[in-house]
Amino acid sequence: MDLRIGVIGTGAIGEDHIRRITHVITGAKVVALSDINEENAKRLASVYQAVFYQTGQELIWSREVEAVVIASWDPTHAEYVLECIKARKYVLCEKPLATSAEECLEIIDAEMGGGIKLIQVGFMRRYDKGYRKLKEIIGSGAIGEPLMVHCCHRNRIPGPQHTTDMTIKNSGIHEIDILRWLLEEEYETGQVLTVKQNRNAAVGLSDPQIMLLKTKNGVRIQVEVNMNSHYGYDIQCEVVGEKGVIRLPDPENIIRKTEGMCSYEIYADWSQRFVQAYDTELEQWVESVKKSRLTGPDAWDGYVACITADTLIRARKQETVEPVITEPQPDFYR
Amino acid sequence: MDLRIGVIGTGAIGEDHIRRITHVITGAKVVALSDINEENAKRLASVYQAVFYQTGQELIWSREVEAVVIASWDPTHAEYVLECIKARKYVLCEKPLATSAEECLEIIDAEMGGGIKLIQVGFMRRYDKGYRKLKEIIGSGAIGEPLMVHCCHRNRIPGPQHTTDMTIKNSGIHEIDILRWLLEEEYETGQVLTVKQNRNAAVGLSDPQIMLLKTKNGVRIQVEVNMNSHYGYDIQCEVVGEKGVIRLPDPENIIRKTEGMCSYEIYADWSQRFVQAYDTELEQWVESVKKSRLTGPDAWDGYVACITADTLIRARKQETVEPVITEPQPDFYR
Amino acid sequence: MDLRIGVIGTGAIGEDHIRRITHVITGAKVVALSDINEENAKRLASVYQAVFYQTGQELIWSREVEAVVIASWDPTHAEYVLECIKARKYVLCEKPLATSAEECLEIIDAEMGGGIKLIQVGFMRRYDKGYRKLKEIIGSGAIGEPLMVHCCHRNRIPGPQHTTDMTIKNSGIHEIDILRWLLEEEYETGQVLTVKQNRNAAVGLSDPQIMLLKTKNGVRIQVEVNMNSHYGYDIQCEVVGEKGVIRLPDPENIIRKTEGMCSYEIYADWSQRFVQAYDTELEQWVESVKKSRLTGPDAWDGYVACITADTLIRARKQETVEPVITEPQPDFYR
Amino acid sequence: MDLRIGVIGTGAIGEDHIRRITHVITGAKVVALSDINEENAKRLASVYQAVFYQTGQELIWSREVEAVVIASWDPTHAEYVLECIKARKYVLCEKPLATSAEECLEIIDAEMGGGIKLIQVGFMRRYDKGYRKLKEIIGSGAIGEPLMVHCCHRNRIPGPQHTTDMTIKNSGIHEIDILRWLLEEEYETGQVLTVKQNRNAAVGLSDPQIMLLKTKNGVRIQVEVNMNSHYGYDIQCEVVGEKGVIRLPDPENIIRKTEGMCSYEIYADWSQRFVQAYDTELEQWVESVKKSRLTGPDAWDGYVACITADTLIRARKQETVEPVITEPQPDFYR
Repeated sequence: MDLRIGVIGTGAIGEDHIRRITHVITGAKVVALSDINEENAKRLASVYQAVFYQTGQELIWSREVEAVVIASWDPTHAEYVLECIKARKYVLCEKPLATSAEECLEIIDAEMGGGIKLIQVGFMRRYDKGYRKLKEIIGSGAIGEPLMVHCCHRNRIPGPQHTTDMTIKNSGIHEIDILRWLLEEEYETGQVLTVKQNRNAAVGLSDPQIMLLKTKNGVRIQVEVNMNSHYGYDIQCEVVGEKGVIRLPDPENIIRKTEGMCSYEIYADWSQRFVQAYDTELEQWVESVKKSRLTGPDAWDGYVACITADTLIRARKQETVEPVITEPQPDFYR
Repeated sequence: MDLRIGVIGTGAIGEDHIRRITHVITGAKVVALSDINEENAKRLASVYQAVFYQTGQELIWSREVEAVVIASWDPTHAEYVLECIKARKYVLCEKPLATSAEECLEIIDAEMGGGIKLIQVGFMRRYDKGYRKLKEIIGSGAIGEPLMVHCCHRNRIPGPQHTTDMTIKNSGIHEIDILRWLLEEEYETGQVLTVKQNRNAAVGLSDPQIMLLKTKNGVRIQVEVNMNSHYGYDIQCEVVGEKGVIRLPDPENIIRKTEGMCSYEIYADWSQRFVQAYDTELEQWVESVKKSRLTGPDAWDGYVACITADTLIRARKQETVEPVITEPQPDFYR
Repeated sequence: MDLRIGVIGTGAIGEDHIRRITHVITGAKVVALSDINEENAKRLASVYQAVFYQTGQELIWSREVEAVVIASWDPTHAEYVLECIKARKYVLCEKPLATSAEECLEIIDAEMGGGIKLIQVGFMRRYDKGYRKLKEIIGSGAIGEPLMVHCCHRNRIPGPQHTTDMTIKNSGIHEIDILRWLLEEEYETGQVLTVKQNRNAAVGLSDPQIMLLKTKNGVRIQVEVNMNSHYGYDIQCEVVGEKGVIRLPDPENIIRKTEGMCSYEIYADWSQRFVQAYDTELEQWVESVKKSRLTGPDAWDGYVACITADTLIRARKQETVEPVITEPQPDFYR
Repeated sequence: MDLRIGVIGTGAIGEDHIRRITHVITGAKVVALSDINEENAKRLASVYQAVFYQTGQELIWSREVEAVVIASWDPTHAEYVLECIKARKYVLCEKPLATSAEECLEIIDAEMGGGIKLIQVGFMRRYDKGYRKLKEIIGSGAIGEPLMVHCCHRNRIPGPQHTTDMTIKNSGIHEIDILRWLLEEEYETGQVLTVKQNRNAAVGLSDPQIMLLKTKNGVRIQVEVNMNSHYGYDIQCEVVGEKGVIRLPDPENIIRKTEGMCSYEIYADWSQRFVQAYDTELEQWVESVKKSRLTGPDAWDGYVACITADTLIRARKQETVEPVITEPQPDFYR
């Protein structure tokens, strides 16, 4: 039987998840929608033959809804997740899990209190076949122990409300999560380098920035987070090991030779780059919910990402190297 | 509602289609199976909760079956397709449509007699995003008129029953179809060059071969069909136009630098290379059947591919340049 | 001591050789010049402190001249080469050695009559490090026996006097020579495919053309000779062996990511592409002359290239497959 | 007339310069040699028909010697350079100019005292066509203002005497110089990150290291200096600008498809990678000496590189961010 999903938040990402659940993956269907933008939510409810709910809370408690996807405004994530825990429903929450580490810990306590893991956080890169292959090769020992990771996270242009903190908390957070997962290591310290300002960046936005992270084992990570690359959406990740180097390829595209140049197109935005990762994320989440055994990034991962991002933001403001200090990891999340 | 599909033939490709319809695409389900290997078909019927039918004919006429996928032994394709026409059911038939041009014409007559296009032939490359992008760029005029196409179709090793004729009729036939589609042109002549024998090829198998085709407008096509490349499955297609050249990229893969080499993996077989094409083929076929309006390669395309392959095989045996002569294309297929 | 060289012909290639001998390589100097364009030759004689000679013959017989470079108008090559033989002087003759196979044979007879190899023909690609590495890898057995070679020879635009025959005799002749050298095999047959006409090509020029060659061992060679690629000067060579494929890389150039594309520049003409090959050719020729033992392409190679080109031109005109028939190779040239 | 050069130091680099002057470039010859390894120097003097001198001083003052190349042991550079200034002879000194900033300043004072620029330091990368092209593109404005530079300097394995300081002072110093030249900016601060230790590195050698530099305009530079890459010699440089990114390509090499991989060879050491740069350096140095007007990196560049390296070494030891403080640049060197 199809898993009956309710989706809270019907903006760009929410609508994309609705489309994906309906048309791309199998084994699930969208039965309920909610959004403060009532008009849009009702329109989509009509298109997708789902029921519209006035509030996320009502949707979460609805008997029709077996599992919940949260794609609403960031500051609302925590309360909906907590409500899902109360209602004992599986939930896939878009990143961030919450806007503060305190809220994350509150969620963690509630989840542990319930005794069952219900929460998955939307770090979809863990499902990207490129990162998965990097992890597989590292695991094979082919490059020895990883020593350094060089990353670039380049957007063409940021949205109008993009802020200096969001560069870390909304964009760089993907690298914060994926590199922990890739290296299977925790962070020890973080630092942010401010860079010569790109004159194309909006007034008040410090762009680009460089995040420096050091793991407990001394692996050094540099992440260029560049919101105004101007030329395209470009995600680079190179892992330097003791006897070799591996890196993500550029996404394949037709090779052209015209007008004195050999060239290929670069993606313009993230939705093109991570199509496969989002598809696989939803697919595997649905499968795991059906088996009552989540396998993806959990609330603890959401908490660590959040506190690491906060640490980096503080480090940037203070121009210091800051220790990344987390609570002890509960056995529940091991 | 899900389209109820019956699948005839449950070998490698048939099983893959069953998996795809069930787990990958949405909007369809497999309700019926048939195969002369009764045991395997029954096993899969059990796994996929489908009904086993003793014969393809019974499956085709079953009220439970709305549309048919044929993935049985090549020589049986024609009779099943004809039966589908009689039963007025949409059918996706794996290539080849039939083993002779005469049978293809019989099918065409039957289909036209019914007054409605029911047949799609499984030339899945038309759904590959690489070929689609090549076609889009040609259409944009960015390289001027195409003048030449250089192709390679390389298998790692062929199956044990592979014959010299099959190199053209089963492997090269993909290029025969896709290049007609890409160039939107018909073939005028064909020729096959025998090549120095690969000593790794089975005794009696002439391998590799080079297919030469010329279109009515004088575009020259060369296709290396190489069943024993030894190193991998590699599909190359380069279109040379009046002011530029475009070509398929190698499929993206992790870049490694180890032991003095920079390298990336090459696919080992076709199932890896054309995953996306097969998925999209099925997905769009299901959609089009639901709209009662097929959009993919039709019986006429199956016929032209068949007669072109036959012409090339004759040209190889006679060591001549042979004209590709088809019946006049009926308006029905324009 | 520096080898004292006289250069006949001071056009573009001649002047480039003068520059190269003077400024790039060591161990030689230009002491004498001659050209029917007296003014240009005198100007260069003044710049390079060389003596101007009224005729090539005078230059050849001059006591000051130890070795001769011929870069004059193609139809004059043969008589100058014959004069060098009479004068018993080493000569590097730009390709073609002569404009007809008969003249080549006359030269061969004269050279054999003198009992010493004096002639090197300017097939500079034999000194290109890319082709040399291809040959080395073939020789290592890493790809098994070569079975096919796919080549492209693309010019951006041809000179105004370029003719349909010159496509083979002046451009394609480089592939004719280099592939014989690369494969260490002789040609058995040749054929030329006419291609849909590039509308950017001059009226009366059949462009592009495809040369097909078959070696005595059955290796199949296809060469696209394309004088109006429009986009750049591009030389491709891929050797397909029994267990692997090797090919020339595109010349390295800065990778750019700008405006939605990743790209690198392609050379505009041959002088950029083969700088290193020309330098090494001259350098090694000078060294070998000093040791009185030529090691480069000889008169026999010039003859085979000439007769193969003639065969291909005849095959094109007759639309036939023509045997490549040469005289028996004298031991003198083995 | 050939420039008469004396070479002090006949180890690997010294011998390579002797070979280059004799066989590769034109317009110069080696007339004098000196080395504390008398036997080797005498042997080379015999091979190259040069005169052996017991001491560098004697060689410098010899009437036969017009210009000097210093390729001796690093700690001896300064005294030979000072002697050349006294003798008013042009000198190309391998990097480093001296082993301390104080010595560099002494040289600078002496050179200014003589009133004429005589010294060029052997930062050969300024002559590499890749870096030159990067500089040209930056200058064209095609990528806007540079904001960041990501570099890797990877050796396969270091020599047995390699120390932690040498990683910066002997290897990273190339990046210190080339990036100042590329960006046309001075450094403001430097920092060094220690990295998880490569277990293949010698005991006591901290390897790899990451150098962080910030220019006066805020451009951020990261240089991985990795002496035990294990896989090859690999120099990477990517410049990120306001609207585009440019980077050095991997050196071109034959593309192979064998055994399931597509691959190309990576250089094993620096001598292969920078052949062209060394050749052009020598060639242009000889030309500029003949015109009595040096154009390459001068004593001031040698001083800035030295003091920047010292600053980085101090920053590493103290784990601090250190300001790069130089003397005011004299007009003499502008």
